[in-house]
Amino acid sequence: MSKVISRRRRTASKVGRARPVAASRVRPYVTRAIPCLDILDDDGLAMIEREADRLLKEVGIDFRGDTEVLKILADAGATVDGERVRFDEGLLRSIIQTHAPAEFIQHARNPARSVKIGGKNTVFAPTYGPPFVCSLDFERRYGTLEDLQILIKLAYMSDSLHHSGGIICEPTDIPVSKRHLDTLYSHIKYSDKAFMGAATSGERAADSVEIARILFGADFVDNNCCLASLVNVNSPLVLDDSMLAALKIYARAGQAVTVTPFIIAGATGPTTIAANLVQGLAETMAGVALTQLINPGTPVMAGFLSTAINMRSGAPSRGPEPNLALIAFGQLMRRLGVPWRAGGSFSTSKILDAQAMQEASTFIYSTILAGANFVIHAAGSFEGGLCTSFEKFVMDADNLSMMERMLGGITVNKDECALEAFKEVGPGEHYLGCQHTMSRYQDAFHVSTIANSDSFEQWKEAGSLDATTRANHLWKKMLDEYVPPALDPAVDEALGEYIDNRKSQLPDSFA
Amino acid sequence: MSKVISRRRRTASKVGRARPVAASRVRPYVTRAIPCLDILDDDGLAMIEREADRLLKEVGIDFRGDTEVLKILADAGATVDGERVRFDEGLLRSIIQTHAPAEFIQHARNPARSVKIGGKNTVFAPTYGPPFVCSLDFERRYGTLEDLQILIKLAYMSDSLHHSGGIICEPTDIPVSKRHLDTLYSHIKYSDKAFMGAATSGERAADSVEIARILFGADFVDNNCCLASLVNVNSPLVLDDSMLAALKIYARAGQAVTVTPFIIAGATGPTTIAANLVQGLAETMAGVALTQLINPGTPVMAGFLSTAINMRSGAPSRGPEPNLALIAFGQLMRRLGVPWRAGGSFSTSKILDAQAMQEASTFIYSTILAGANFVIHAAGSFEGGLCTSFEKFVMDADNLSMMERMLGGITVNKDECALEAFKEVGPGEHYLGCQHTMSRYQDAFHVSTIANSDSFEQWKEAGSLDATTRANHLWKKMLDEYVPPALDPAVDEALGEYIDNRKSQLPDSFA
Repeated sequence: MSKVISRRRRTASKVGRARPVAASRVRPYVTRAIPCLDILDDDGLAMIEREADRLLKEVGIDFRGDTEVLKILADAGATVDGERVRFDEGLLRSIIQTHAPAEFIQHARNPARSVKIGGKNTVFAPTYGPPFVCSLDFERRYGTLEDLQILIKLAYMSDSLHHSGGIICEPTDIPVSKRHLDTLYSHIKYSDKAFMGAATSGERAADSVEIARILFGADFVDNNCCLASLVNVNSPLVLDDSMLAALKIYARAGQAVTVTPFIIAGATGPTTIAANLVQGLAETMAGVALTQLINPGTPVMAGFLSTAINMRSGAPSRGPEPNLALIAFGQLMRRLGVPWRAGGSFSTSKILDAQAMQEASTFIYSTILAGANFVIHAAGSFEGGLCTSFEKFVMDADNLSMMERMLGGITVNKDECALEAFKEVGPGEHYLGCQHTMSRYQDAFHVSTIANSDSFEQWKEAGSLDATTRANHLWKKMLDEYVPPALDPAVDEALGEYIDNRKSQLPDSFA
Repeated sequence: MSKVISRRRRTASKVGRARPVAASRVRPYVTRAIPCLDILDDDGLAMIEREADRLLKEVGIDFRGDTEVLKILADAGATVDGERVRFDEGLLRSIIQTHAPAEFIQHARNPARSVKIGGKNTVFAPTYGPPFVCSLDFERRYGTLEDLQILIKLAYMSDSLHHSGGIICEPTDIPVSKRHLDTLYSHIKYSDKAFMGAATSGERAADSVEIARILFGADFVDNNCCLASLVNVNSPLVLDDSMLAALKIYARAGQAVTVTPFIIAGATGPTTIAANLVQGLAETMAGVALTQLINPGTPVMAGFLSTAINMRSGAPSRGPEPNLALIAFGQLMRRLGVPWRAGGSFSTSKILDAQAMQEASTFIYSTILAGANFVIHAAGSFEGGLCTSFEKFVMDADNLSMMERMLGGITVNKDECALEAFKEVGPGEHYLGCQHTMSRYQDAFHVSTIANSDSFEQWKEAGSLDATTRANHLWKKMLDEYVPPALDPAVDEALGEYIDNRKSQLPDSFA
């Protein structure tokens, strides 16, 4: 088996995979050394699971516009009534636990950056889908391909972003029908981290797989996960034809999807946290099980996204409820035993002010407490997901590096307990020059790239800059220092040919 | 016994305790419904405890300038060598676990606001000690008595601040020698929540006890905890004469102190988290045990404060390390079995920007995960503790209300799981008008007093205000709406007489 992999690796490097970088600081993903937070007891968890089973049996899920899927589900023992599909107690859980891998590797074109998704691992990826961008340098406006490419470069430069993501902002200057091609090419060209495929239609998913085959080699893609893509449930309780088409293509190609309910409490689901958990569990199990019926053993992630709502304005809001729901969902996922995606650095703020980081810092902390394995929206998310902020992108990335350190926990051994240092220094003296400090001070503490801990006088002398202004300087410095990862010219050319050809077949539709 | 308490209560209300307010929304403190986060395993915890015991035995603690204390410790079995005191393994733990109460009530002059400290309870109190204040309305400057009184009023108006605290800012326009008198009177006059006594000298501690006796009645104070005060260890490993003097007075009066090591990693302690825990445990056990030798059973809190340091500038910094240390210290405290004080909404920022709330939100989240029972610095802390921000005070208080909700956990029962609502609404429809939502929408979600979740367009239309500006408007609105709690004129007069008399005896010293 190792021989096979080794041959594949060589084949792959002939085509598009970059050589491993000698980057000692690179951590391709985080493996947690601290436990998750268990906020529900076993009785509570069992009740959520029972009520999810009742929901699946007594109400069911609509699988719309796809007779093939309805047949697959009927064959697996589900009760199909028109497009409504009902599942007996335990059926979906049994399918998932029989077939779905507990963890898997998504390959990056730079093998040193491949990510392991599942178990105690966490992978941080940029925000996904905002049509707008903003920065201190320009007014909030629709995103462009150039913006997307800048954000891909910033993600590439950020050690704590393990994954290049997908639509970090919508490149709205490109026709909708062709965006996925330029988006995929930009991730490949400007980064060597793993990336996401398109998921808004079967055709775009098929393009994503073909592009991966050019990059990684067809053989390699046939036998390895090279794409992780986002299939959203149309909550409540609907999977529609375009999402099902993408799901089928990825599952058959052995490429990962994350099946994510999108629950706005009070709108696309009930107001209560317990009900959001019930619904989220039922919806994600329906999609995850389907992938395993289509291709048993294909890599897959469950997903969960819930938000509170401002009952006066109808706007999504960031309060305690989504944090609590997220943490509890992690417990449900550990009982189910599949990798799962959730969380992020969300904020409803319109500028990078105190609110923005109050909301984002709290939610990303909940994300690591929940043990989410794949975290889209870990950097840059603004306005409840409508906008990507360049400054927040690097500020979130800095905060993620702090979360990484938190996940590393505390080393306890005799040397770290420092009794010899206490003996050397004694009461009332300082530790600045002692041996224990001298041998550690350079790496003793996490260093933020944004936070300013100077005295008031030093800070004022340096221009009284706020964090947003410092973040603005930082992302421009990162862009200045950006050097693109090498890409085999033959692969680059082959990608160009495929994309040009596909573009010539597609209409210039902006709708 | 209940008769005795009842008589005392009546006596008290004759003097200074306000009648209970009919305030249904008042939660006098939080009782957690979610577990703490245990990040160290039993082996790690046992090693920290063993190394703390070795530190106490092989290095020891200096108790400086107080021969009485040295004699008390020697009589209890410690080895006294000059001012250096060494303790055999387990001695301090045994004294603490034999005598110190696991929880106690600190009484407020409004009985409805008395707080229970210890166990699963958390009490949030304002920041303590900053010489500076700042606001959008004025340049950063030294604090005044007027500033302090404004902050006391804001704390009184904030439901999520359960305690009035102490020196929310230093009233630097009052001579140092007299500040404690005006500070205590201001807490009594402008709030009816519990408050802290002075602790910078024995004389000031004695004044605090006398003032409490006037307010609550002497009998009541003799038999109940009416003050909680802060006794800092002069880390590393020193308790000095002024702190010992205050500790003795409070312990003998049956009033609570919190014995808090102040560990700046790399300066007043080693750089490693494990060593900070060893030192913190040893130092706080030394002080806590002393209170129990002086007055067995007197209420007491352990304490812990550690901060990272910027090794280039020497400035305290807020990184992952103090967060990890705080959470682990909570585990040590649950094993020791005493109430403890730690955490807060710290930030090193100089303005209320994104950094300020990134740091503060993360640390207060760690604080609730740690299970700290008494949280000084829960609101207003700025510049690493040097400054109190009026805007951050109300923004932190808003964030505390979110933390309170988080501590409440998730209710799971059939009704909350909402199967009937799922049946009523069905796939693809919304929950805005269904019965389950209609019966809950008014209280379904936590509502922030600061966060803005409007659309970009609504927000822009309303003036594009940032969170800091909204916080500025909020604290001024709160001040406008402030109504002082009633104070018995006879008590007010008695307090005035005591304070005037003491002031006439004290020099006008500003040093």
